[in-house]
Order: sequence, then C-alpha cells, then structure tokens
Amino acid sequence: MTETVELDPILTTDFIKEMAKQMRAIDSYGTYDGWTDDKVLAPFIMTKEQRRQIPVIGDPDEETLSRVKCFYNAIAVMIEKECGHMAVPLVNITHEGFGRALITVGKLVVMDRTVRDVHRFSFDSLSKMKDEADKLLSVAVEIIGKYSEVAGL
Amino acid sequence: MTETVELDPILTTDFIKEMAKQMRAIDSYGTYDGWTDDKVLAPFIMTKEQRRQIPVIGDPDEETLSRVKCFYNAIAVMIEKECGHMAVPLVNITHEGFGRALITVGKLVVMDRTVRDVHRFSFDSLSKMKDEADKLLSVAVEIIGKYSEVAGL
Repeated sequence: MTETVELDPILTTDFIKEMAKQMRAIDSYGTYDGWTDDKVLAPFIMTKEQRRQIPVIGDPDEETLSRVKCFYNAIAVMIEKECGHMAVPLVNITHEGFGRALITVGKLVVMDRTVRDVHRFSFDSLSKMKDEADKLLSVAVEIIGKYSEVAGL
Repeated sequence: MTETVELDPILTTDFIKEMAKQMRAIDSYGTYDGWTDDKVLAPFIMTKEQRRQIPVIGDPDEETLSRVKCFYNAIAVMIEKECGHMAVPLVNITHEGFGRALITVGKLVVMDRTVRDVHRFSFDSLSKMKDEADKLLSVAVEIIGKYSEVAGL
C-alpha cells in the first residue's frame, strides 16, 4: 500500500518556512539534517493538556530559550521583508523565565512584549503560531508606516 | 589632629548620586551600609594601567555585569527626570561580554549602543563617567524633543 503524505499548507507559508530556517540555523551539530520542517518545529506545539502538565513555576532550559528567540527572530525577518529596513530583535529573559522581547527598526520600537512563563512557551498548533506572528507583524508594519521617518533613522 | 575631608564636588551631582543609589539598590546584604558614595563607586574607576593588566579576552563576572546595568539604569533615570516620560533600559550581554544596551521612551529608542569588552568596563575617573553619561543624556533628550509623539506613545 502506498500512502501519499500531503503537506500541510501551513508549512508552505513564509513565516513557518522562516521558523524552520531559524531553527536549522542554530542546529550546530546537524541533528535536524534530513528532518522535515514539521519535525523541526514539533517542540513549539503543545496541546493544552500537555502544557497543563508542566509545573506553573519553572526555569526555562536553554532549548526553550532558543525557541523563544527563534520565534522573535523569524518575526523580525518578516518585518524586514515587509518594510525593507533592518529589524533587530532583542530578547532578554531572566533565568526565571520572565523578560522582555523587543524588535526595533531604526529608532522605532515596533514590537515590545513582556514575556513570562517562558518554560511553557508553546502554541496549540502551527497555524495558531502563525496567527500570533501575523498579529505582531501587522501591528509592526502599521507603526512603521505611521512613523517611517523614525524607522528610517 | 582633626582632618577636614573635602567632598569632591562631582559626588554632589545628580548623576553620580543616582549611580550610588543604583548600586545601593542591588546591595541585598547591606555590605555598603556606612560606606561613602565614593567607596561604593570605586569599582567603576580604573586607571589605564590597571585596565591594561586585565586580559583582552575574558568573561565578565556577575558583579561587572551588574555595574554595567547600574550605569545604564542611572542614565535612564536621568532621561526620565529630564523628559517626564518613563525610560526603560534593556541591557543584553552574552557570557562572553558582548551585547547591546538600549533605552526606550515610549516607542522611541533614545539610546542604542553596542557594548563589548564588558569585563574591562570602567572609567578613568568619576568625572569621565559623568561626561560619558551627559553625552548619552543630551543625545537622548534631543531625539525625544524631535520625535516627542513617538516618545509619548
């Protein structure tokens, strides 16, 4: 019996492709070579049930932190593609998993979020992850349009 | 013999007083109680000779990192006093001592510096330290004046 594996259309979107690229970029030992994007991005996805099983208080490990950075890096790349200016992400998280994620374009702060409970950082599905990114992207692009002079500094 | 200790006028400036305040704020064990501001701020000062004796490559320890944060926190407080809006510092340094120091006011980046060689972070004198801060402050205040709408967001 031959099975045709259909590729989830979400995996062909720019953002999800960029996410996979960001994850592969930090994969120094080539662990992900030969893996599908789906598999590379699997650690981002958790059901509500799985998330509930993680203790409320916990310190994020290095891998979780790097996933958070991947997420905001990918958003910065999207912003850059959209507006043509360099977008610089800055993620600052304490060892307790609280912090701030920021993206600047020129002298303009186009995204500024307080992050918390980083040790539980995950999404219900890839499509939910993309929705979240799209929201941040559209707010960023709007503010860049409004204050283009500051963004161009 | 009674000695009259003359207070260096630099110690009465707003910035240097704020620096001492920032240092005392992180002194959880009360080590600095009873110390003069001068003594509290002593680790910030190094002669060229002393600095030269520190290896070129080195990882900054926690205390050095906290001094860097104190410096930018104090500048943020000065900016806040000057412009009336909240100024938020964000210092992100890798364990290797490279990174970025940023101060935002509203959605405006009023200071953005690449920091390096953090393990050698120090100044020739308190007055040199204040000069450096004054420079950053005046640039910040100028840009806030120019883009006050963005700073007020």
